[in-house]
Amino acid sequence: MSRWFHDGEPANVVSIDDRAFQYGDGLFETIAIRSGEPRLWNYHVDRLVMGCERLQIAVPDVPTLRKQLDKAVTDSGEISAYCAAKIIVSCGISARGYARENPTAAKTYIGVFATMPVAAKLYRDGVETLVCDTRLALFSATAGLKTLNRLEQVLARSECVAHSAFEGLTLDASEQLICGTMSNVFIVANKSIITPSLHRCGVEGVMRRHTMETLAENGIAVNMRDVGEAEFYQSDEVFLTNSQFGILPVRRCGEKVWQQNPITRDVMAMMAKKGVAECAL
Amino acid sequence: MSRWFHDGEPANVVSIDDRAFQYGDGLFETIAIRSGEPRLWNYHVDRLVMGCERLQIAVPDVPTLRKQLDKAVTDSGEISAYCAAKIIVSCGISARGYARENPTAAKTYIGVFATMPVAAKLYRDGVETLVCDTRLALFSATAGLKTLNRLEQVLARSECVAHSAFEGLTLDASEQLICGTMSNVFIVANKSIITPSLHRCGVEGVMRRHTMETLAENGIAVNMRDVGEAEFYQSDEVFLTNSQFGILPVRRCGEKVWQQNPITRDVMAMMAKKGVAECAL
Repeated sequence: MSRWFHDGEPANVVSIDDRAFQYGDGLFETIAIRSGEPRLWNYHVDRLVMGCERLQIAVPDVPTLRKQLDKAVTDSGEISAYCAAKIIVSCGISARGYARENPTAAKTYIGVFATMPVAAKLYRDGVETLVCDTRLALFSATAGLKTLNRLEQVLARSECVAHSAFEGLTLDASEQLICGTMSNVFIVANKSIITPSLHRCGVEGVMRRHTMETLAENGIAVNMRDVGEAEFYQSDEVFLTNSQFGILPVRRCGEKVWQQNPITRDVMAMMAKKGVAECAL
Repeated sequence: MSRWFHDGEPANVVSIDDRAFQYGDGLFETIAIRSGEPRLWNYHVDRLVMGCERLQIAVPDVPTLRKQLDKAVTDSGEISAYCAAKIIVSCGISARGYARENPTAAKTYIGVFATMPVAAKLYRDGVETLVCDTRLALFSATAGLKTLNRLEQVLARSECVAHSAFEGLTLDASEQLICGTMSNVFIVANKSIITPSLHRCGVEGVMRRHTMETLAENGIAVNMRDVGEAEFYQSDEVFLTNSQFGILPVRRCGEKVWQQNPITRDVMAMMAKKGVAECAL
């Protein structure tokens, strides 16, 4: 099923001394591959480079990384038309201890995975969500980044599985809405579009950025600020963004049901025109 | 140098699909081995079991784990008289995604490492520390636990390396003293002993617990509460606890120097009597 590569060669195992295994010392990106091409490549590169700089991990050579990605997608064979690629940048191998002996010896691993498009019905009718009990810690040193320290998302995702929800929305420890376990969230209130500020925690998704930039090109400013739980439940519409599925309306969260989502549909139409084909209804 | 084992066999590599590598989905313990025996074994087990329960990871069978540990120490050969063993419990292997497919398929890895005792001079004169710029996130869902999500400690440890400090002390994002990158911290003020509360973040160290219990047996109550940075710098003495080195006085933090540490010396004497031989001066 999965196919992993390192330096162009198949890699099914890693050293037990890899710092990603020992400490989660690294970053990752999950990229939508469409007709063999990585969608929003430059946005993924931007976040990965920013993450390496903030964590003081050697930045991979981007042209080399792209060549390795293209080769991995090709070598993975028939699944390249519609799949996901996961790039892991680990801080590499060291002896025991938190101290990095050789911070420049970062290692890059690329996995290619067959994926199924989300059912058209969910793009039309929206998805079921819940607000997770798991809270995100505040003022994280890695806020915004997609690091390999993902226990909060793992715990929140277990709640989704237990409740058969498509996605779980997470609040931070000050009860502000932040994001989903695998998505960012936008709300519509009084015809304006709002997305939570992510300076305290959360991941700055590439599809969130693409959505905000697409809206800006259409003359619509997204309001990025704190969103409390009450405001979320009182909103007129809610939608999720994610690199793989693009945009999905939220139909339900707990007892709350959103029946109409005209503005979300407008946003989806704009995104479909900008190459996110899944958003075309 | 290092020797890793899984199910009693040497294990130098792990599956790239191991959730410890992908998400830091697991826990670890670092245990002092003295004359072939794991020191404070029951305390390590208590924390590991509590961690597995809180993270919903299958609890390893403790008698089996102990047999595997003893075998690993023996198989590691000549280093067993004075070494460290690291037990990693990973949530196991799954396909891509935060959701755990089979939460009961946890995997245990045991590494045995030669270690050098800390120089006697440092037990006598104390160690050099700094307060790290890296802040610990607040109200972590994994506060107290020794999880595989250790990026904050990695970043703080890089600061120690840059300043050639023995240890870096970390504050949380509300500027309260929490712990060191690899130790817990105690301060002495007006002859009372205080250690930071760890309900918002930090790791509940086994030597911290052993110190508090030893002091209690000697009729001395440790005050566990918030400690601000100002109170820390104004304290009369500071000492660190860690499973490997036991107790070390702090001689310096930045500009502040502590010249005398009579109460720390009393605590070290009590700990030496309780089997932490390193504390005997």
